[in-house]
Amino acid sequence: MTDIFNPFYAQIAQNRLSHWLESLPKQLNDWHSGNLHGEYKQWMKNIELLPQMKADRVNLKDKVQVTSFEPMPQGLQKKTIHHLMQLKPWRKGPYHLHGIHVDTEWRSDFKWERLAPHISDLSDRYVLDVGCGSGYHLWRMRGAGAKFVVGIDPTQLFFAQFMAVQHFIQDPAVNLLPLGIDDLPPLRSFDTVFSMGVLYHRKSPMDFLQQLKAQLTKGGELILETLIIDGDENTVLVPEDRYAKMRNVWFIPSAKALEGWLKKVGFTNIRLVNIDQTTLEEQRKTDWIDTESLEDFLDPNDPNKTIEGYPAPLRAIFIANA
Amino acid sequence: MTDIFNPFYAQIAQNRLSHWLESLPKQLNDWHSGNLHGEYKQWMKNIELLPQMKADRVNLKDKVQVTSFEPMPQGLQKKTIHHLMQLKPWRKGPYHLHGIHVDTEWRSDFKWERLAPHISDLSDRYVLDVGCGSGYHLWRMRGAGAKFVVGIDPTQLFFAQFMAVQHFIQDPAVNLLPLGIDDLPPLRSFDTVFSMGVLYHRKSPMDFLQQLKAQLTKGGELILETLIIDGDENTVLVPEDRYAKMRNVWFIPSAKALEGWLKKVGFTNIRLVNIDQTTLEEQRKTDWIDTESLEDFLDPNDPNKTIEGYPAPLRAIFIANA
Amino acid sequence: MTDIFNPFYAQIAQNRLSHWLESLPKQLNDWHSGNLHGEYKQWMKNIELLPQMKADRVNLKDKVQVTSFEPMPQGLQKKTIHHLMQLKPWRKGPYHLHGIHVDTEWRSDFKWERLAPHISDLSDRYVLDVGCGSGYHLWRMRGAGAKFVVGIDPTQLFFAQFMAVQHFIQDPAVNLLPLGIDDLPPLRSFDTVFSMGVLYHRKSPMDFLQQLKAQLTKGGELILETLIIDGDENTVLVPEDRYAKMRNVWFIPSAKALEGWLKKVGFTNIRLVNIDQTTLEEQRKTDWIDTESLEDFLDPNDPNKTIEGYPAPLRAIFIANA
Amino acid sequence: MTDIFNPFYAQIAQNRLSHWLESLPKQLNDWHSGNLHGEYKQWMKNIELLPQMKADRVNLKDKVQVTSFEPMPQGLQKKTIHHLMQLKPWRKGPYHLHGIHVDTEWRSDFKWERLAPHISDLSDRYVLDVGCGSGYHLWRMRGAGAKFVVGIDPTQLFFAQFMAVQHFIQDPAVNLLPLGIDDLPPLRSFDTVFSMGVLYHRKSPMDFLQQLKAQLTKGGELILETLIIDGDENTVLVPEDRYAKMRNVWFIPSAKALEGWLKKVGFTNIRLVNIDQTTLEEQRKTDWIDTESLEDFLDPNDPNKTIEGYPAPLRAIFIANA
Repeated sequence: MTDIFNPFYAQIAQNRLSHWLESLPKQLNDWHSGNLHGEYKQWMKNIELLPQMKADRVNLKDKVQVTSFEPMPQGLQKKTIHHLMQLKPWRKGPYHLHGIHVDTEWRSDFKWERLAPHISDLSDRYVLDVGCGSGYHLWRMRGAGAKFVVGIDPTQLFFAQFMAVQHFIQDPAVNLLPLGIDDLPPLRSFDTVFSMGVLYHRKSPMDFLQQLKAQLTKGGELILETLIIDGDENTVLVPEDRYAKMRNVWFIPSAKALEGWLKKVGFTNIRLVNIDQTTLEEQRKTDWIDTESLEDFLDPNDPNKTIEGYPAPLRAIFIANA
Repeated sequence: MTDIFNPFYAQIAQNRLSHWLESLPKQLNDWHSGNLHGEYKQWMKNIELLPQMKADRVNLKDKVQVTSFEPMPQGLQKKTIHHLMQLKPWRKGPYHLHGIHVDTEWRSDFKWERLAPHISDLSDRYVLDVGCGSGYHLWRMRGAGAKFVVGIDPTQLFFAQFMAVQHFIQDPAVNLLPLGIDDLPPLRSFDTVFSMGVLYHRKSPMDFLQQLKAQLTKGGELILETLIIDGDENTVLVPEDRYAKMRNVWFIPSAKALEGWLKKVGFTNIRLVNIDQTTLEEQRKTDWIDTESLEDFLDPNDPNKTIEGYPAPLRAIFIANA
Repeated sequence: MTDIFNPFYAQIAQNRLSHWLESLPKQLNDWHSGNLHGEYKQWMKNIELLPQMKADRVNLKDKVQVTSFEPMPQGLQKKTIHHLMQLKPWRKGPYHLHGIHVDTEWRSDFKWERLAPHISDLSDRYVLDVGCGSGYHLWRMRGAGAKFVVGIDPTQLFFAQFMAVQHFIQDPAVNLLPLGIDDLPPLRSFDTVFSMGVLYHRKSPMDFLQQLKAQLTKGGELILETLIIDGDENTVLVPEDRYAKMRNVWFIPSAKALEGWLKKVGFTNIRLVNIDQTTLEEQRKTDWIDTESLEDFLDPNDPNKTIEGYPAPLRAIFIANA
Repeated sequence: MTDIFNPFYAQIAQNRLSHWLESLPKQLNDWHSGNLHGEYKQWMKNIELLPQMKADRVNLKDKVQVTSFEPMPQGLQKKTIHHLMQLKPWRKGPYHLHGIHVDTEWRSDFKWERLAPHISDLSDRYVLDVGCGSGYHLWRMRGAGAKFVVGIDPTQLFFAQFMAVQHFIQDPAVNLLPLGIDDLPPLRSFDTVFSMGVLYHRKSPMDFLQQLKAQLTKGGELILETLIIDGDENTVLVPEDRYAKMRNVWFIPSAKALEGWLKKVGFTNIRLVNIDQTTLEEQRKTDWIDTESLEDFLDPNDPNKTIEGYPAPLRAIFIANA
């Protein structure tokens, strides 16, 4: 059995998530003794080799930054960068770790700035982020006052990246579990649930919306960010094959249609608070990824179209109550 | 354990469906020892009280009709009608049983006439009907030459109605199991799969299409009938509440959109063979139902609209190959 | 899924064992897709290579013998012997197959002669043999009139040997399933249950006796043969390590003690019908085994002792009613 | 979900028992939402009504005693006795709770005195008591220095009695779980495992011994107390019906036989440290039980015999290593 999650279990045993213990330890142990990614052990070794630094100042309010009074010596910084680079591609960020700028593909802080003014104050809240990637927003949620933050994402590399950041920040109230939404029982315990960039990857968007609702306390708040297209309440794009080179894209509704879906599964007080077209400033190639990025996904002759000829990614943020 | 399905097990143990024995008997036994409908026993008692008649002539070619050389005496006919009436509402039909005309709400033969010219010859085929209701079309499939016909429908009243008809016809190659599609393992064994009037009731239409595909042999034929609306390939209606007074309506795509969905899950050779607006001749109140019917579901001032103001039911038939 | 057992399923679907379908097909399929013995495929290939011979005369009354009017040519007989020899060691028998004498380690017919006079007439009975080995006694039970005979034994080689004999005899009413008693639900369906040479191999003899009882119809008959030692009602030998070179020997009670155990779990009308010390005539080395036999298991200086110094095998036959 | 065990989960999440979280919370929740004893709620209400008293002095060294500097007022003592009396019969004890002497049927301290000189020092040990009753010995184990003590007993009344005692003592390192040995995975984590008065209640004593072994660390110590009879290594009493009026008595071996069993399942360094015949001083009727006691279980004319004529209870204590 893996010991990684024991501190998490000890925490939830004594908070409102204790009923999660009925299923979680078995799931995570099955996960750990199951088909781990071929490089998982290598990733973990890189994390073990990261230097021990005192986290004298942690700033999660306007970025994700940790520093110590004694700056990291240059040689150690070089070694640290080397180990972090083994965890490429770094998609969501950026992180500022003892002077090292992990310049990720995404400026995820842009998205946070767009949504932050609209959400309920996170102070003292239990918060869940479904599809949290490496966990960038988990830190910002904590910085905004959340009492206990849980992110889930089944991608093991993102888990490793989170562990690397957590290695430096050391905040037990911020946790990432390598799970998908299908692994979660209906916990009905979070005051706020975020899900950003997941809905269009779900074969059954209605089941997904119900699963999100089932994690919320009565009246809790959902922040849902997803791809949309222009159109009326009956407009839904189902790309036959890839969309912006992504496999596994199923339903992209219009904002009006998505509003109807949220209503249908029982959300109330539904508000569309932001629509935004992703720019090349927000998602772009950096030294921390070695794959393609947005510019490669769009039509070179018309940035308003994907390479397949669909409308270019337009992203909407909805807020609603359970 | 219930014995009702033993003859079915004996048959599949010796045909290409034998692998179904891995799960089916346990499921059906759980079903039978579980929460049966409060009137289930009463229904079965009515079936036991039906008279034993020789089935001298069975016509499944152009209707569903059984007669014996010796006609049923009038008194017995009256008693038989009484027992059959206990199984109201009779939705799909009609049936002609020893001179008794079970005049069902639906003229399901109309639908059969619309699709029959377009489907592959059913001779010697294994055929599955998903959401078969009382099983009217099962008999017509058998009449069209099918070797082994299985219908599934979780509504217990429809199972009882089927048992009443089977009581008179006695054809072991025609079977109805009180199950839903979620209860089926991927059998990959049917040459033809029908699903009529189900898709719009599924919360996840894509999962449903994949489940249908998983029942077919490689290259097997799907006949899919469902509600559609007018529109382009990105048009999908998701009624927020009821549609034509039906609860539990989720996705009603345009014909173009549905074609795209079928393609997306891997069907080939997709053909739209019929579009039809249900008439008051095809679905109407008779003595064999005591509920509302189509006329009550439409806008009294505009038969092209449902009572909720949505487009009136338009039904499309698609044929495709797995 | 394996097809081997489909004829068995078809039979039980229509007899009193139909409830067994709730668990059996899944178990046998798991068995077949699980960890088969490394030589299993080779054994099955040998069985496929056995010649097709008409079974004109089958004698199961006083031996297990099958012949055809046309005797098997000598060349073919040689080849057949070769294939059968690939299934060594042959422990229980003997078999007489188209002139071939499979001279097994055990003269299992001796045991049959000892018990036959004491048991209830098997005519028209459903019979189970728990730990049936290659199935010699299954044939004798059938020869004694049993309607449907099932043997279970988890040893895959014995299953292969049975399939070889069944290849020549072709009697669908005689079946061997590669299962242990722990795999059986409480069927409560057999008129007679035999268990010979198993009890002392069970870690929990009381559970075993209850499992046997649970296979019997109310009032059904148990024939239990097992090792015993001399002693009073409180005498039970538990060898610390091996017994007569056998690993996995747990409890060897006295006859009196075993009688008490049978009573304790609810058997009635308990009769000790035979006690016998196995002779070198009954169990001995032949050309059909290439392992040690009884003479090697006993103290060379005192045939009344095992090589470990325990009392030599004494075997008792009990008959009792459920 | 019940919250009673959350503090226990929080503790084991951070000690060597963390792998128990894979199964335990689900089991205990199933237990709590399952068939609780008809009076369980009433028992719990009595515990809630017990007064809050400071535990200024806890003596677990030579008895189980808790007192506060401020003695409990007489009126409150009367009320407290009333609530504790609702949890009758009190079998194992005695307890001294703020001046109240819970004078249980058994003087369990006698047994402790007999075994204490022979066991390994419990200091800093993880200790399990299988079949712990109301948990008297758990307190004594803690008093002897154990770091973490777990008792299991499926009888819900004993759980309630333990909760009543724990209400006054408040020691999180002492825990009782309402489970049987069959509910435990092979934890291989306890330095010492006690099982007193259980073996003869097990239908399969060998499985039981293996289950005890599976709870121990490699080399860990078993203290096994059970009924024995006089006899040689092949002597085992299996009472056909009751023994000393107890139902559910299976195997009572001689000391020699039990030694062999322990050896057979792999224990080493097996020592018989005590044999004792229970006296009427150790087990007798008091105000805290309202059922029969030892004197009723013995032959009135011969205290060396049970009322059924078997040898009177003789109890042996074995110590062995895993």
